[in-house]
Amino acid sequence: MASVFSRIVAGEIPSYKVAEDERFYAFLDINPMVKGHTLVIPKKEVDYIFDIEDPLYADMMLFAKKVASAIRTAIPCRRVGVAVLGMEVPHAHIHLVPLQNEGDMNFSHKLKLSPEEFSAVASAIADAFNNQK
Amino acid sequence: MASVFSRIVAGEIPSYKVAEDERFYAFLDINPMVKGHTLVIPKKEVDYIFDIEDPLYADMMLFAKKVASAIRTAIPCRRVGVAVLGMEVPHAHIHLVPLQNEGDMNFSHKLKLSPEEFSAVASAIADAFNNQK
Repeated sequence: MASVFSRIVAGEIPSYKVAEDERFYAFLDINPMVKGHTLVIPKKEVDYIFDIEDPLYADMMLFAKKVASAIRTAIPCRRVGVAVLGMEVPHAHIHLVPLQNEGDMNFSHKLKLSPEEFSAVASAIADAFNNQK
Repeated sequence: MASVFSRIVAGEIPSYKVAEDERFYAFLDINPMVKGHTLVIPKKEVDYIFDIEDPLYADMMLFAKKVASAIRTAIPCRRVGVAVLGMEVPHAHIHLVPLQNEGDMNFSHKLKLSPEEFSAVASAIADAFNNQK
């Protein structure tokens, strides 16, 4: 059965898309730690990130770097933090989290956003991503 | 002034080394969340990980992947988690954390290990790293 993330990529489950290319997809975490918390996934379904073959893995990290740059442009933050835990959904995903301080990377803290807020955040990051050189 | 991590690479401050090549260095976090918690750094001193130029950044991620594989061989765990926060030391570093469950990635939890325990963990990971194909 396709993972929930594969169903998001396929458009069967809606998501607040931030960036996409042939191989990768980035969208807002629906249970964000902070505003702008984004997930980056490969379209190819692989459970454990370190099982992804080297070239695709390296390109995924480079794609995440571009998304992180867009987040930092769109969302006021000191920097963008990275986390990969990956035990809840069996489809590798990188958390990109705009941080003001280290305590913002707190998986037990969840922010409530309205659909309008999610849309506005996704649009701002997508615009920054598309305007990158 | 050189960062504390540059001084570790230079051997001016001791560390429990796990792996090294021309451009990267991996060693045990001295305040580990769990046994086997490792830091991967570039020898070149760059504060923010996403400021590292693309080729070096991609190679650092590939180096971290090899270190993560060695950790998983040496330390019983379900998988190795990844985190980059980087506000305490102005020298980019990737946390690699052997996880049994997601709660193990908890920056407010610190484990006390003896020097003998640190040495044994570092040796086991280093051996696994050096024995990789």
